[in-house]
Amino acid sequence: MGMVGGGPGSFIGRVHYMAAILDGQIDLVCGSFSSDPKKSKITGEEYFLPPERVYDTYQDMIAEEAKLPTGERMDFVCIVTPNHVHFEPAKLAMETGFNVVCDKPLALDADEAEVMVRIKEETNRIFALTHTYSGYPMVKEARKLIQDGELGYIRKVVVEYPQGWLSEPLEKTDHVQASWRGDPKRSGKTCCVGDIGTHAFHLAEYVTGLRVESLMADLSTLVPGRVLDDDANMLLHFDNGARGVLYASQISAGEENAVKLRAYGEKGGIEWNQMEPNTLVIKWQSKPMEVRRTGTGFVSNIAKYNTRVPAGHPEGYIEAFANIYRNAATCMQHLIEGTDPPVEATDFPTIYDGLRGMQFVDKAVESSGSRSWVDL
Amino acid sequence: MGMVGGGPGSFIGRVHYMAAILDGQIDLVCGSFSSDPKKSKITGEEYFLPPERVYDTYQDMIAEEAKLPTGERMDFVCIVTPNHVHFEPAKLAMETGFNVVCDKPLALDADEAEVMVRIKEETNRIFALTHTYSGYPMVKEARKLIQDGELGYIRKVVVEYPQGWLSEPLEKTDHVQASWRGDPKRSGKTCCVGDIGTHAFHLAEYVTGLRVESLMADLSTLVPGRVLDDDANMLLHFDNGARGVLYASQISAGEENAVKLRAYGEKGGIEWNQMEPNTLVIKWQSKPMEVRRTGTGFVSNIAKYNTRVPAGHPEGYIEAFANIYRNAATCMQHLIEGTDPPVEATDFPTIYDGLRGMQFVDKAVESSGSRSWVDL
Amino acid sequence: MGMVGGGPGSFIGRVHYMAAILDGQIDLVCGSFSSDPKKSKITGEEYFLPPERVYDTYQDMIAEEAKLPTGERMDFVCIVTPNHVHFEPAKLAMETGFNVVCDKPLALDADEAEVMVRIKEETNRIFALTHTYSGYPMVKEARKLIQDGELGYIRKVVVEYPQGWLSEPLEKTDHVQASWRGDPKRSGKTCCVGDIGTHAFHLAEYVTGLRVESLMADLSTLVPGRVLDDDANMLLHFDNGARGVLYASQISAGEENAVKLRAYGEKGGIEWNQMEPNTLVIKWQSKPMEVRRTGTGFVSNIAKYNTRVPAGHPEGYIEAFANIYRNAATCMQHLIEGTDPPVEATDFPTIYDGLRGMQFVDKAVESSGSRSWVDL
Amino acid sequence: MGMVGGGPGSFIGRVHYMAAILDGQIDLVCGSFSSDPKKSKITGEEYFLPPERVYDTYQDMIAEEAKLPTGERMDFVCIVTPNHVHFEPAKLAMETGFNVVCDKPLALDADEAEVMVRIKEETNRIFALTHTYSGYPMVKEARKLIQDGELGYIRKVVVEYPQGWLSEPLEKTDHVQASWRGDPKRSGKTCCVGDIGTHAFHLAEYVTGLRVESLMADLSTLVPGRVLDDDANMLLHFDNGARGVLYASQISAGEENAVKLRAYGEKGGIEWNQMEPNTLVIKWQSKPMEVRRTGTGFVSNIAKYNTRVPAGHPEGYIEAFANIYRNAATCMQHLIEGTDPPVEATDFPTIYDGLRGMQFVDKAVESSGSRSWVDL
Repeated sequence: MGMVGGGPGSFIGRVHYMAAILDGQIDLVCGSFSSDPKKSKITGEEYFLPPERVYDTYQDMIAEEAKLPTGERMDFVCIVTPNHVHFEPAKLAMETGFNVVCDKPLALDADEAEVMVRIKEETNRIFALTHTYSGYPMVKEARKLIQDGELGYIRKVVVEYPQGWLSEPLEKTDHVQASWRGDPKRSGKTCCVGDIGTHAFHLAEYVTGLRVESLMADLSTLVPGRVLDDDANMLLHFDNGARGVLYASQISAGEENAVKLRAYGEKGGIEWNQMEPNTLVIKWQSKPMEVRRTGTGFVSNIAKYNTRVPAGHPEGYIEAFANIYRNAATCMQHLIEGTDPPVEATDFPTIYDGLRGMQFVDKAVESSGSRSWVDL
Repeated sequence: MGMVGGGPGSFIGRVHYMAAILDGQIDLVCGSFSSDPKKSKITGEEYFLPPERVYDTYQDMIAEEAKLPTGERMDFVCIVTPNHVHFEPAKLAMETGFNVVCDKPLALDADEAEVMVRIKEETNRIFALTHTYSGYPMVKEARKLIQDGELGYIRKVVVEYPQGWLSEPLEKTDHVQASWRGDPKRSGKTCCVGDIGTHAFHLAEYVTGLRVESLMADLSTLVPGRVLDDDANMLLHFDNGARGVLYASQISAGEENAVKLRAYGEKGGIEWNQMEPNTLVIKWQSKPMEVRRTGTGFVSNIAKYNTRVPAGHPEGYIEAFANIYRNAATCMQHLIEGTDPPVEATDFPTIYDGLRGMQFVDKAVESSGSRSWVDL
Repeated sequence: MGMVGGGPGSFIGRVHYMAAILDGQIDLVCGSFSSDPKKSKITGEEYFLPPERVYDTYQDMIAEEAKLPTGERMDFVCIVTPNHVHFEPAKLAMETGFNVVCDKPLALDADEAEVMVRIKEETNRIFALTHTYSGYPMVKEARKLIQDGELGYIRKVVVEYPQGWLSEPLEKTDHVQASWRGDPKRSGKTCCVGDIGTHAFHLAEYVTGLRVESLMADLSTLVPGRVLDDDANMLLHFDNGARGVLYASQISAGEENAVKLRAYGEKGGIEWNQMEPNTLVIKWQSKPMEVRRTGTGFVSNIAKYNTRVPAGHPEGYIEAFANIYRNAATCMQHLIEGTDPPVEATDFPTIYDGLRGMQFVDKAVESSGSRSWVDL
Repeated sequence: MGMVGGGPGSFIGRVHYMAAILDGQIDLVCGSFSSDPKKSKITGEEYFLPPERVYDTYQDMIAEEAKLPTGERMDFVCIVTPNHVHFEPAKLAMETGFNVVCDKPLALDADEAEVMVRIKEETNRIFALTHTYSGYPMVKEARKLIQDGELGYIRKVVVEYPQGWLSEPLEKTDHVQASWRGDPKRSGKTCCVGDIGTHAFHLAEYVTGLRVESLMADLSTLVPGRVLDDDANMLLHFDNGARGVLYASQISAGEENAVKLRAYGEKGGIEWNQMEPNTLVIKWQSKPMEVRRTGTGFVSNIAKYNTRVPAGHPEGYIEAFANIYRNAATCMQHLIEGTDPPVEATDFPTIYDGLRGMQFVDKAVESSGSRSWVDL
């Protein structure tokens, strides 16, 4: 793969790298790691890349790599830049014939996202979006359980993503992650909703198989002087009539990444916490609570397919991330070969999830502004 | 004390009894346990009461007990009937000179509640309301922590109360608790909001010391054929600018009484779960997470005052309930003696919390109906 | 009941009291609370006892109460003194015709215990011993599960009871609980083993239904200058061939009362923690982990019989203690009536558990001294 | 690196691979994955190795690779075979000039281990042993805390490693892992003690910095017909006078890999669970419990050095494993360069830990056989 972004100070670039290479199927072969060629070079050296494949711009990278013979050139582009630099490189990559793995959120807004979807369809490329939480085996187990109707008709969904790291105005310091997230030009019209609200939204729709039909949002900026939102609370109505609550927060002081999903049907409920990701709690209405665990023999094939080590040896965030890469790469390989990938490999977030996420962002902003329910 | 309600099939009557007698300061001396005198008699026997003090009606009880000499007659009336039988006995008791301990919610609506407050003030009686969760030592610890400013300015509050017991239409069976709660004549205009939403609301205001200023509610009935709401989700704005989420649900299948409160300030957040009530988690922004525990030496005086056994020997629901009784009874004793009670004893929910709760219920119904934000 | 011991500064006296009265079946009617009559008087007043039934000595109490008419005199004696004052009052009470509830350990050594058993059998009295942990509903659930063979043949048992409160030489201060426990004249030949090791031992045998056949103990005194043991670790062999580990410690700094039992059979294992007592975890070998909870409909009758409130409202230590009192009192009542008590009520620890505990203490001391395995 | 072992059906081979490559510093360049060349070839293909570097025997691999120029040949040998094939390849590798990363336990017995140590010293090679649990950041945090004296003098250590996977006689099936572990010729004189007891032992000594001075072991075979031990319980005395308990079990039905360490000093205790490895609980004697978390700013440099992602994104087993590889590889690189590695990188288990482990195994067997305490 070739990486766009991920230069010095980037956290997510390194994560993409580790996730990509973990299974030995993907190599980082080239990169354009920064808009500053010097910084790009430094990062290229850290990855032991040959200097000629560390490019000054992503445009160069895509153009030059396209000239290399198959098998030698990068197989896909991995985009780990701030939000405002997703659209252009993704567009160029697809149009030049490359598949794409892109960090979320997909774009700056739903308009950009729709164009990207159109290009994807025209170019028939694979486009994976790294909504990491859907890569965890126990998330897939929960989804399977609901798909199989084990909980019955779903009535209630609660999804939350509290963080505390923006409790202080870090975006006014030189903090790399905070500064671009807090800047509308680079982040888009929201900070909190786009950055982590979209994760929560995706998780809820992915696991339940439902779609949010309307929402009532309350976006706030609680740290004085901040430009964008740092806290977002929403009421949800789903397309099957289920009710929901979604909240995302960057000023929940002391919280790390406490992503949590609960969904309740007629017969029981599931609970999953990202910070103990190998455990899925199922609270039954008519029998004792059950706990399913990654790596045991008592989970679905889709959970097993996304697991690397036996039960009791915890898998974490990098492995969940790696599942997206491995599944997408497997599909890319089959695309090259013109064969059908195993159905399990097709389970990764795509550009359509990205479009959906951008629509969610737009509607959340609209609802909060008008203090009213809006349809999605 | 003399009990109104709590006849055969009542759950909460027995809980009030155990809570009242636990510390050896309060005796049950009489009762009118049911509108059916035969049932009242049966319950009276179970409590080993002399037959002459088991009354056919609460009116009889209040009238007859008032004739007995001080020290022999009941000191206060404990009301554990369904919601529609709170107002009349409470009014009569206060007007006859008795103090009152009443189950929540206070009344059928805010209008009734306001009258009750007026009578309370005219008669100068003590009126305790059993919002049990505020009786837990670690809840008081959380309140103290926030009062002392240890978390700084509060920015975010999340309070939730999921239950699953009404996932089926129990109110259509002869289930005692479900049938009156599901009946607007006996329960009032809501089921879920009044029954458990008020607990969540009280807990949030009690611990943070803030007041909800406006809310946006979404009340739903998710079990087909049900008359009243069984699920309620709300967005909150507090008077200091803090944002909040409150939800209560009776159709969160598989949940027991998972009351949980989180509050976040500038410097950290607290988390308390009723199902592990002896633990208060404090997540600091600038130092490692801290866990305070009931019965240790490392908690406030108010927590210690409401604790009975050493750390590591769990206290539970009955003990929390008993704290309300003991504190209220201590204040009653001081009222008789004309002395000031210890300040710790004055910390129990009162009729004013009850009025506030009824206003909350009314506004939640209004907001949900109009799909708009309303002030509280 | 009439209480022996439990004067000023006693922790366990108050616990016995609350546990006894919780269900409204037992009243404290008299007491001899201290060897110092003045102190006894103070405690008597705290319990609102009439002065004439606060006795200077337990001998007086037993003699005078015996003269009162049935129905008026105490029904049984509750002994909450330090270990060295268990034998004499228990003996006298039984010989005078009173039933007994006694704190653990039963006596100073197995010799005393054997005499007590003989007297109990001669007098045909009921003798309950407050091994509290066996009073928890989920402990009874675990026992039932194993009795029913759900785990298959039991192979491994691990029981532990770490405390930290004697990490400093409290017994050299005027700390009431520490000073007698650290004194061989009042505590017997051990501190840690007798005080909490016996609880762990009883819990293991009670839940598994197995008996320890031999043990290898390592008793230590880790706080300099201390006379008795403050830490005890043991290897166990059970009579069915199962292996085990038992440890008790009073110098596990920072621990509260972290009693924990695990037992494993061919088909699965159970885990119970006293500090979260309403949860029983069952780890199956061939299906997902299961969590049973106090108060739900998914537990055995014996668990339900010992439960007071619905699921999700935690019960704790006082309630577990109260189960022993209520069950023993129910049996006493049936003994008076000459009828058979319900079988559930017969489930409480007795003098035979006390004898077994004293044998355990003696053998642990012997094994540790000789650094060798000894039979029990 | 070049891998010895890890052919089809191997679990640990793949783990070593993922751990090795995670950070992009190490490549798998060759291997001899099985004693059956056909199987070796299959595995080589799975790793995309060029056929000429998939060797029929480890002897070939070591001989042929040694002929390649520096920079092209493998830098070290990674040994992931059953225990009886550790000694010879390790010896040969070191004598041929290669560094070694070896799975644990080091050898079949202490005699073999001593020879290996001698060769290591003569050849001045780096020899890392994958006691994985010491690779977790919070284990290193615990060690640092104790090193710094924050807990004071250590008095008690409890380490346990329960598994349930051998609750049935899997070694009599064609289960790859079970069959060699249950065979004395391939596993050595123990199964449970060698396989997981050594992990527990290493963890205890690593974290506390203490050494076990004597032990009393009870090894058992609880599954009928099994040859080697499947359960082991031990009492420990440490060189500073601390007491301890160690147990390892493969028949704790339903357990996964519940490695847990507790250590108590004068001032507090630590608790670490492998199945929630990013949390370190510190129970203080004189202040509230504290929870330190991987990835936060509130941990030691050594913990941070071994962490890859921010707090709240869980790291797991592969990352812990990878820390050993990365640290060892960093030291290898510095050895080549003749420079001193950063002190943090020198923190990985070595051949000396392996020797210590084999001595532990021998003494545990001796103690259990003689039913007596033995010195270590």
